[in-house]
Amino acid sequence: MAEQPKEQLRTAPSSDRRRLLRTGMGAGVAAFAVAASGRARADDPSPPADPDWSQSLGPGIGDRVYGNPSHFEKDVIRRNVPWLTANAESSISFTPLQYQQGIITPSSVFFERYHAGRPTVDPAQHRLMVHGMVDRPLLFTMDDIKRFPSESRIHFIECPANGGMEWRAPQLNSLQYTHGMIGCAEWTGVKLSTIFAQTGLKPGAKWVLAEGADGAHMARSIPLDKMLDDVLLVYAQNGEALRPEQGYPVRLVVPGWQGNVNIKWIRRLQIGDEPWYTREETSKYTELMADGKARGFTWPIYAKSVITFPCPEMPAKGPGIYEIRGLAWSGLGKVKQVDVSLDGGINWTTARLHGPILPKALTKFTMEWRWDGSPALLQSRAMDETGFVQPTLTELRAVRGTNAIYNNNSIQTWQVKPDGSVFNVQLA
Amino acid sequence: MAEQPKEQLRTAPSSDRRRLLRTGMGAGVAAFAVAASGRARADDPSPPADPDWSQSLGPGIGDRVYGNPSHFEKDVIRRNVPWLTANAESSISFTPLQYQQGIITPSSVFFERYHAGRPTVDPAQHRLMVHGMVDRPLLFTMDDIKRFPSESRIHFIECPANGGMEWRAPQLNSLQYTHGMIGCAEWTGVKLSTIFAQTGLKPGAKWVLAEGADGAHMARSIPLDKMLDDVLLVYAQNGEALRPEQGYPVRLVVPGWQGNVNIKWIRRLQIGDEPWYTREETSKYTELMADGKARGFTWPIYAKSVITFPCPEMPAKGPGIYEIRGLAWSGLGKVKQVDVSLDGGINWTTARLHGPILPKALTKFTMEWRWDGSPALLQSRAMDETGFVQPTLTELRAVRGTNAIYNNNSIQTWQVKPDGSVFNVQLA
Repeated sequence: MAEQPKEQLRTAPSSDRRRLLRTGMGAGVAAFAVAASGRARADDPSPPADPDWSQSLGPGIGDRVYGNPSHFEKDVIRRNVPWLTANAESSISFTPLQYQQGIITPSSVFFERYHAGRPTVDPAQHRLMVHGMVDRPLLFTMDDIKRFPSESRIHFIECPANGGMEWRAPQLNSLQYTHGMIGCAEWTGVKLSTIFAQTGLKPGAKWVLAEGADGAHMARSIPLDKMLDDVLLVYAQNGEALRPEQGYPVRLVVPGWQGNVNIKWIRRLQIGDEPWYTREETSKYTELMADGKARGFTWPIYAKSVITFPCPEMPAKGPGIYEIRGLAWSGLGKVKQVDVSLDGGINWTTARLHGPILPKALTKFTMEWRWDGSPALLQSRAMDETGFVQPTLTELRAVRGTNAIYNNNSIQTWQVKPDGSVFNVQLA
Repeated sequence: MAEQPKEQLRTAPSSDRRRLLRTGMGAGVAAFAVAASGRARADDPSPPADPDWSQSLGPGIGDRVYGNPSHFEKDVIRRNVPWLTANAESSISFTPLQYQQGIITPSSVFFERYHAGRPTVDPAQHRLMVHGMVDRPLLFTMDDIKRFPSESRIHFIECPANGGMEWRAPQLNSLQYTHGMIGCAEWTGVKLSTIFAQTGLKPGAKWVLAEGADGAHMARSIPLDKMLDDVLLVYAQNGEALRPEQGYPVRLVVPGWQGNVNIKWIRRLQIGDEPWYTREETSKYTELMADGKARGFTWPIYAKSVITFPCPEMPAKGPGIYEIRGLAWSGLGKVKQVDVSLDGGINWTTARLHGPILPKALTKFTMEWRWDGSPALLQSRAMDETGFVQPTLTELRAVRGTNAIYNNNSIQTWQVKPDGSVFNVQLA
């Protein structure tokens, strides 16, 4: 393992640190030299001839008052699967997780889910109505909402259909399509408990209907207890205003719960004593079990993880030493441990978790991988602080049958072939 | 203070929580009702007539494979001060901090500093050379660099000239211009110690020259101990590849140290036994003291903070209850405490710090402000975990004189007038 000598580097006094670098280095770190050793020279290398960009002035300040990525990164985009939905207005796009570094998903490529396309909402005209079993029904402007005490938190949002195409057999050889209905961001807004402190709540209040201002009036019933616990009325993502596709000017963020309850372009909160059984919690977002009954109101995202390197889009390049990288998450709290298998789940090694490890947020994990070029079956398995362990697909099917679409949090298997190419496979 | 009842809400059992909401609420939270009470109605309010966007289909998936903000947010941009520099190629832009929510600065509006404009570097052609007092001089491709064990960390970067216009007298009535040469992001890259483990280091090595691939060949000398401690060779920011203006494809991030040593578009690391005294550490980025001597190599950013609401660009709107919001940071570690004064530094109240509180990162603070409409002098004062307390400008001038430009970490005063407008002032 490469970790041990690096930890020594960090803690040893500086003179010891340098001696260690000069002499020991540890087998793990030294072995990474394969990546660059072909270019080592006996004397100082000369840099390549100065390229044009080192001999000229580039564009100055003011050229990009709002920046965008380099044109060399033009493949880092959201993608969709045309055959997945009947039309583009009720469809979904996928985050390019194969390119994501760290736990923050750029707002520009954060997956989208529309039920009636993307509305263009004027924040000056937008209102949020809170009514029903309250003492004082109220209408809030965006200025009202932004004036309340604010909360900033880093949370993931995942569509429960993430992996839904994979319930019965592998469909698409792509990390972006198997796991890309997820993103993680820093959200800023107001606690719902703050809003309800304004309106008051009548005795017997138990449920809240959250409704969007899109043409579908997308609506879900959410238990009041969850609303009072940690739900936010959010107006900013990753430091700036929400993007239109993420609910501009205001949305719910329901930490750890499936994406569709995180109502976007939110315009109405109605408080009641029972759920509303809206279209999107009856005909959709329920799970047909093997016995023909459907499970509803299955809100939390359970412990899940995936290896993001290597993956189908990012293959290995011949034998050598690599860093396996991945992301883990749980809607119940913090990720506690991630194990990685190289042989399809027979042997497991505990991966390194990178901080900050935050509740209901993506957590980065890594593990050194010395690959000799023989076939491998890579898997990752997350465990959260409640002790929940990510199941295999076989285990999940035994409980849920194969009619389901939603809440596939099973262990992903990547098959690595001797040429380094990576395939989405399912083990018997 | 509004905090107490909110904490009770979070920890009380759910039945108690609801009773609290119905009856008590606490004076602080209830008083925020001023923001919306004008719109309260005795019975359920009707929402405004359905706007167009709630009665139509919006654009579908695939319309924005890489998203951007709403056109209603067109003022959230980097800005520059034309008279500040001789030309646009050696200049700086300012982060619109008045709009930032939370601790993550969007990459699109993260301040820029150019010494020869923004080079367009082809990542396939780019090389990093590491040479000098090493055992094995090496050239690294971007693929080499990305293959090494990775680190992801959230850190701020601040130009030491931030506030430099304000040393002698208030210049610009703007938070963006007084404090906008800063941003905070999640950076992903490779520890320099990992790179040096590849090259080895010869006895006596003490300094590293870091040189950029821009036309200025921007270069700084950095102590090897700092490089081995926590410096990263960074290729990703906020989840995606670095933006061109932030050093694409690879830069240094030198946590907690002034921005100019965080060399962008980095192409060369030379190891030696003494500093190089480059142009940018002799004619620039030194501090002329009152006695005519100049201080050099003043790297760390000391504890600093600023109130981001209210501020000149975001005034108050009449008497009432507000949340004062701000950001604090220290290049020496974590922020430990922030105090806020409403009367120009006579009385201080400790503000609430919001997590995650990370070393060498922006930290959000807030405090309730019940404003009766009388003139106020708002200040914030940060203290870090080393015990360093942010000084007043008077204290700083007593030590440094008034010739300096760099490293103004003094307490900012915002004067609030009875009409709610906010002005940048300096107290005698």
